[in-house]
Amino acid sequence: MFAISPLRENDFPGWYQQVIKASDLAENSPVRGCMVIKPWGYGLWENIQALLDKVIKDTGHENAYFPLFIPLSFLEKEAKHVEGFAKECAVVTHHRLEENDGKLVPTGELEEPLVVRPTSETIIGESFSKWVNSYRDLPLLINQWANVVRWEMRPRIFLRTAEFLWQEGHTVHSTEKEAFEETLKMLKVYKDFAENELALPVIPGEKSEGERFPGASNTFTIEAMMQDGKALQAGTSHFLGQNFSKSSNIQFSNKNGDMEYAYTTSWGVSTRLIGGMIMVHGDDDGMRVPPRVAPQHIVILPIMPGKDAAKDEAVLECAQKLSKDLKAQSYSGREIRVRVDKRDKGGGEKNWEWIKKGIPLRVEIGPRDLESGTVMVARRDKAHRDKLKMSFEELNEKVPELLEEIQNNYFQQAKSFRDSNIETSLKTREEFESYFQRKEGNIGFVRAKWCGDPKTEEELKKLKVSIRCLPEDQNGKVGKCILTGQEATIEALFGRSY
Amino acid sequence: MFAISPLRENDFPGWYQQVIKASDLAENSPVRGCMVIKPWGYGLWENIQALLDKVIKDTGHENAYFPLFIPLSFLEKEAKHVEGFAKECAVVTHHRLEENDGKLVPTGELEEPLVVRPTSETIIGESFSKWVNSYRDLPLLINQWANVVRWEMRPRIFLRTAEFLWQEGHTVHSTEKEAFEETLKMLKVYKDFAENELALPVIPGEKSEGERFPGASNTFTIEAMMQDGKALQAGTSHFLGQNFSKSSNIQFSNKNGDMEYAYTTSWGVSTRLIGGMIMVHGDDDGMRVPPRVAPQHIVILPIMPGKDAAKDEAVLECAQKLSKDLKAQSYSGREIRVRVDKRDKGGGEKNWEWIKKGIPLRVEIGPRDLESGTVMVARRDKAHRDKLKMSFEELNEKVPELLEEIQNNYFQQAKSFRDSNIETSLKTREEFESYFQRKEGNIGFVRAKWCGDPKTEEELKKLKVSIRCLPEDQNGKVGKCILTGQEATIEALFGRSY
Repeated sequence: MFAISPLRENDFPGWYQQVIKASDLAENSPVRGCMVIKPWGYGLWENIQALLDKVIKDTGHENAYFPLFIPLSFLEKEAKHVEGFAKECAVVTHHRLEENDGKLVPTGELEEPLVVRPTSETIIGESFSKWVNSYRDLPLLINQWANVVRWEMRPRIFLRTAEFLWQEGHTVHSTEKEAFEETLKMLKVYKDFAENELALPVIPGEKSEGERFPGASNTFTIEAMMQDGKALQAGTSHFLGQNFSKSSNIQFSNKNGDMEYAYTTSWGVSTRLIGGMIMVHGDDDGMRVPPRVAPQHIVILPIMPGKDAAKDEAVLECAQKLSKDLKAQSYSGREIRVRVDKRDKGGGEKNWEWIKKGIPLRVEIGPRDLESGTVMVARRDKAHRDKLKMSFEELNEKVPELLEEIQNNYFQQAKSFRDSNIETSLKTREEFESYFQRKEGNIGFVRAKWCGDPKTEEELKKLKVSIRCLPEDQNGKVGKCILTGQEATIEALFGRSY
Repeated sequence: MFAISPLRENDFPGWYQQVIKASDLAENSPVRGCMVIKPWGYGLWENIQALLDKVIKDTGHENAYFPLFIPLSFLEKEAKHVEGFAKECAVVTHHRLEENDGKLVPTGELEEPLVVRPTSETIIGESFSKWVNSYRDLPLLINQWANVVRWEMRPRIFLRTAEFLWQEGHTVHSTEKEAFEETLKMLKVYKDFAENELALPVIPGEKSEGERFPGASNTFTIEAMMQDGKALQAGTSHFLGQNFSKSSNIQFSNKNGDMEYAYTTSWGVSTRLIGGMIMVHGDDDGMRVPPRVAPQHIVILPIMPGKDAAKDEAVLECAQKLSKDLKAQSYSGREIRVRVDKRDKGGGEKNWEWIKKGIPLRVEIGPRDLESGTVMVARRDKAHRDKLKMSFEELNEKVPELLEEIQNNYFQQAKSFRDSNIETSLKTREEFESYFQRKEGNIGFVRAKWCGDPKTEEELKKLKVSIRCLPEDQNGKVGKCILTGQEATIEALFGRSY
């Protein structure tokens, strides 16, 4: 028996929805396509923010904040950008409500409608055009933590929601080389962050032309594989060339005193990472949260049978003392996060709540344990009946090690699942098509040579397949394009995606 | 000569604008009423967030995130609430843009327009109505860090902007008593936070009926005095009674199994606090940032004359070493924040930039200092020529103490300014009116007895005066209302406000 129904293998999308509910991460809101991120889900996001923000700052970037609203005319400046973003966005047209027959109606029509930012290149570009004057002002390295809105027709919590939370980096450089290096540097930051902190193995690479960010010269991505074999774009880093500096007029005087257009980049990750963690780490008992970003590392479950008030009190006291000792330890450079769950609920019920939430460690402490000075410790990466008896001292001593083991287990499990689901032996278009038309077993990624013809990207859509990226690690050998049979040097990663 | 023109005494609003510009805290954006918060201003906000978030969590609250958009029908639920917020708000009416004659036009009209949240009681109430079922689910203690939008006709950076950043706490309780206690607890949290961290002396008290939050039963506030004698509402805490639980249907089954409406509270502070700090601490040389929330505590200014490359290099190395040593120290429980300003600019120019930004300590280090092992240290709370010669060791040792002295100085200066500008000796309406009609000298606050008649609040508007609060510390003695001459027990604080 498992806590989640349906099981992953029977109905992955149904399982995903149920895990979100059972783990209390988030819920749909009455506003179509917008989600409510509940404390357990927001706690994950807060840890993502804290950890990533530190790396962003350590690499020389500063945080700032720009307006939520973008004038229509700004969005129109960059042709491909407007094409990519105008279709589905929230438009503010009025700035006032008035009562009419007991109903509120929008009045005070704006002269120019405002778009709720789907991304901030154009509005930040406007500021940058004023901030940048001389080569001495460069590089300009700015990051923003914000909410953005992209009206989604088929929303799905954490993956595609009308509103989501993210960070968006925007930088300006005096040379193409430096801007390109920045783009790759941040891709590396995302890769390391995803793998080390979220335990998400990812494949970094460049997007094909058909998958590029609207207005970018080059888009780089980290792609993760979910347990249904589909790909999730987990973060992107864009080299924007001079496209946006020309449309936003970001010019600087170089060392010779001549005016030049600057080179810009942008890069972001979002609350979608939480969706990725659910689909990579979750199991049929619910969520499993990687310790590095877990809102709580340990829950202590005091067992208080309610027959002897003094004994119950002693158990609670002991739990509090243990919590205090554990909190004094550190794991991965931060305080260990412990909660004592003293809610007036049955022990089995509470235990299962925490299993479904995916807390890394559960510690049970009852009246008999007080005498022996021991507790029962359960790891979320093991079967739920598989508990270890430990003395208080042993637990205190071992806790950072236990958490690190769980973190590594999640990463290794995800990596071996992914690696065993990348098909690299296909040779022909027929094999390729039959791979993606399979009904049984996992459909994962295909890695094969690709000639780069944009037409083939269109054709892939019929198979509901796309090029996820041209992976960073290329062998450079010449071969045959899996789709056209033409000579090809580049290897591409093909897959279905979220 | 001062760095800012106009001076405070000649044109306070003009001075305020110039300080924001000179200190590089923020700027106006092309979107009317929206501001761009630049890194120095956002750094202040990040510290406010970090410090306040900790206290909010330590008092048992958890963070969550709710939708940016509120359906019109939600806003309509609470009569006073809609009256208070419908007038000026951004309304989303379409979810798509289409090209028409080369222009983008809004299409895809929404069935029900959405309001960009001016505050979240109604949308959070909808979630709470589902989360709360039994008394066991209470208290529910939630906080949100978010952006909100209130369309302002006369925007002013940090004080009244269409979009601003804030935190909004929303809690649900089973009893009136507990909810009321929560309201006062958070008021106390705000008072301590403003005074201890922002060095802003504030007067806590209750708002009069005319100044209440739309839909609240009681509104409490902390009021600060700016250097022009005007009041700034720096934070509010609302006891909402059962008003919102009735309109949002937040019911719980009590211990007897009967259904009851819950009692709710909400409370918030915003980026307006930054405006308050500017107007309380700034001087005619620019901003002065309280060390506890300063984005950087210390700037090290290496003096590199550029004549001897080796010597210049040695100065820079020494500055880096000093920076590292200083960063290893802590102040008020957090790492000391140090920046080495090695930009290729003149020493005087750089020095003035940092004076205008209001960094607490400036440290100059030049070729001659290397030999003597000393530096020149300037405190922002002293005259800018008033520098101390210190050995490296002495600086390292004293830096937490220096910062704390500056923090305390700012608070004491602000407090003595405020206290000397509260007029408590007025007896009659004539004296009251002539006080607020004065042309010369500071017009501060008047503290006097008030009968509580709502009509008098209307009359005060002619004088551009309002009741800021009924201060917490009441002597309870009977006296005469300064406005009506009627018998009155309560003392009110009157003033002009932002």
